[in-house]
Amino acid sequence: MNPTLEIFSQGEEIVTGQTVDTNAAWLAQEAIHCGFTVTRHTAVGDKLDDLIHLLSEIAARADCCICTGGLGPTSDDLTAEAVAKAFDKPLTFDAVAFDQIIEFFQSRNRAMPQINRKQALLPQTAIRIDNAWGTAPGFAIKHRRCWFIFLPGVPSEMKAMFIEHVKPDLLARFTLHPPLLISLKSFGLGESAIQELIKEIKIPNKVELGFRAGTDDVQTKLLFPFDYPKTDLNTLVSELNDCLGDYVFAIDGLGEPTGDLAFEIDKFMTANKQSLAVIETASHGLLAAKCVGYDWLIKASYEKNIKVSTQALSTEEQLIHAKDLAMVTQKNTGVNVVLIQLYTGDENALIDKNKSIGLLSVLLVGKAFYQTTHSIVGPISRKQNQAALLSLDLLRRYCQGKTI
Amino acid sequence: MNPTLEIFSQGEEIVTGQTVDTNAAWLAQEAIHCGFTVTRHTAVGDKLDDLIHLLSEIAARADCCICTGGLGPTSDDLTAEAVAKAFDKPLTFDAVAFDQIIEFFQSRNRAMPQINRKQALLPQTAIRIDNAWGTAPGFAIKHRRCWFIFLPGVPSEMKAMFIEHVKPDLLARFTLHPPLLISLKSFGLGESAIQELIKEIKIPNKVELGFRAGTDDVQTKLLFPFDYPKTDLNTLVSELNDCLGDYVFAIDGLGEPTGDLAFEIDKFMTANKQSLAVIETASHGLLAAKCVGYDWLIKASYEKNIKVSTQALSTEEQLIHAKDLAMVTQKNTGVNVVLIQLYTGDENALIDKNKSIGLLSVLLVGKAFYQTTHSIVGPISRKQNQAALLSLDLLRRYCQGKTI
Repeated sequence: MNPTLEIFSQGEEIVTGQTVDTNAAWLAQEAIHCGFTVTRHTAVGDKLDDLIHLLSEIAARADCCICTGGLGPTSDDLTAEAVAKAFDKPLTFDAVAFDQIIEFFQSRNRAMPQINRKQALLPQTAIRIDNAWGTAPGFAIKHRRCWFIFLPGVPSEMKAMFIEHVKPDLLARFTLHPPLLISLKSFGLGESAIQELIKEIKIPNKVELGFRAGTDDVQTKLLFPFDYPKTDLNTLVSELNDCLGDYVFAIDGLGEPTGDLAFEIDKFMTANKQSLAVIETASHGLLAAKCVGYDWLIKASYEKNIKVSTQALSTEEQLIHAKDLAMVTQKNTGVNVVLIQLYTGDENALIDKNKSIGLLSVLLVGKAFYQTTHSIVGPISRKQNQAALLSLDLLRRYCQGKTI
Repeated sequence: MNPTLEIFSQGEEIVTGQTVDTNAAWLAQEAIHCGFTVTRHTAVGDKLDDLIHLLSEIAARADCCICTGGLGPTSDDLTAEAVAKAFDKPLTFDAVAFDQIIEFFQSRNRAMPQINRKQALLPQTAIRIDNAWGTAPGFAIKHRRCWFIFLPGVPSEMKAMFIEHVKPDLLARFTLHPPLLISLKSFGLGESAIQELIKEIKIPNKVELGFRAGTDDVQTKLLFPFDYPKTDLNTLVSELNDCLGDYVFAIDGLGEPTGDLAFEIDKFMTANKQSLAVIETASHGLLAAKCVGYDWLIKASYEKNIKVSTQALSTEEQLIHAKDLAMVTQKNTGVNVVLIQLYTGDENALIDKNKSIGLLSVLLVGKAFYQTTHSIVGPISRKQNQAALLSLDLLRRYCQGKTI
């Protein structure tokens, strides 16, 4: 059993939602990679009674707790006072901390405001955690079963102090076994479709299966205990990968760095010195935007739709025209690959926020010609994103030599 | 005293830090704007006992609780089961919810996977909250002193359901005195620059001043008590607006609906039947992407940079060429306005992730000619976004008749 760890964030700006609590997510990932099981995050505002109650609750429940915020110099920074009351450890003056605070101001040619003296008051028996990046020292203290660590809420200070001081101390203090995380990143299958596809695979009890559906991929995640046999791990990952087939565009955690669709496409395009031009309709610039930072995208254009003539054409005639346009573009620009979107649904569905279903064909001209057709549904920004991703996924399959 | 409200986020991806909990911050702000006092946020993972304990704790402590996550179809989605156990309300089959789930799949030409049937099981006495945006219905239920609301964790579904169903119900169910929130939305000034500009203005004690720096704007927020005199409110808002000047692109909370830069531009473009073409370099498609849903953007193209000839040109010569290109485009396409980006910094800074500063000129040809030049800095995706926003802001100032 891993030791349990809770994250505790203090501050009105968190509890009122003015600040998104990115500290909690960052600390949770760090703690898991150290080998803790993170059981709970809690955020409360600057109310002394709430803080005291919460500290007592956690002291009875968790093996470790990392708290951020409330260490500043002002009257609404109450963490040290709450710890003193909750754990019955009166605040005492820490001369070394005080010298560090004075030094912080002196090195910036500023006089220390009197209110900052408060930051040198630490609960009795607490171990000071030096802060070379700001004025608030952190501290660590044990109460009941729980080892508490208090850090400032400023992300840059908190992260530097965690990496420099807290993490090495935790690794020495606890018996920890960091787990192995493997993620199969896929596009084109929903979470429930994935569950259907892999339902025959027996996941050993020791392995945790999870899913994460983002806007740009779905990740099927396996968390293995640190001592899981490597060959068994590889076998299980291969089984899952075979079930999901060509929907999987990358496997993270096996050593090779992975990224999003554009990142995986880049591996092929760069290695093979390929270049790309795109003509977008439904994705409205977002296809080009998702390729930012890669120099193989030479040219992109957006038009409401590819116009052939004023006469109405059948879908088939439009597709033939789009293919011709792709081949002409390939020839004129000298690129290796051209992607074209042809929107064959109701044109208003791309503009009108109330019309929600459209039909999109994506055509790719490279060494050969490929074509896919999809329904794109939902609010306009979702249709835009789906159109960009469906186009990138066609290119990704082409690059990786997968079925189209 | 305002009624108290807690936010409860469920899911391993939150507690393990794989997902930053932006839902909690969004809901907290909404709840405060309704007139609640938000007292605590808590996140736990997919462990039935943890969920049951937490639900019981909250039921004894808060007047209202909004919970997100854990309503999906898979085995790790345990919220309904936890509610059934914690509040002793066995799960019962909801035929209407089931029909909605079937309909969701039918409209997408997909068969409903059997596991999705589980999402139609709701605790006895719970009131269903319809989800037109996904498969998971939400529900509301009272236990002890607390009115609980359960919503899916997918932000787009959660937000739509909150706005459409939950918020009107809360306003009717509780005695609330929503404070008045006025936000001055600006682009081009940082938070500390704004603080400097407005430092002479006396903010009354009853009024809360706050800031929210997003990726696309900075909001200067004033929270007024519900019974604050209307004339005093208008006076204070005018004073702030005068200090911030033409950086303010919209004032939210005075009655007229406001949105992002593209939304404000749309007011002018649509009313005056204007049309636009853009030629992007540094924003790499994102300028067009931000205009999705508006039919006044007729044509967009992306190129690494506007190439004139193989000979090196001075910046001045390049600007003249870009202006010519804009005028030719205006003539050939028949649009009213053309926006062109000319990237005159080190071209590698747009591709190379390590080079962080570039110089961007934005040219606008409309009824007259305008030109602005900016340094764009930071990681590549930030430079891309800045380039798109700087171009939109030039167009916004043109549309609103502000100084350029």
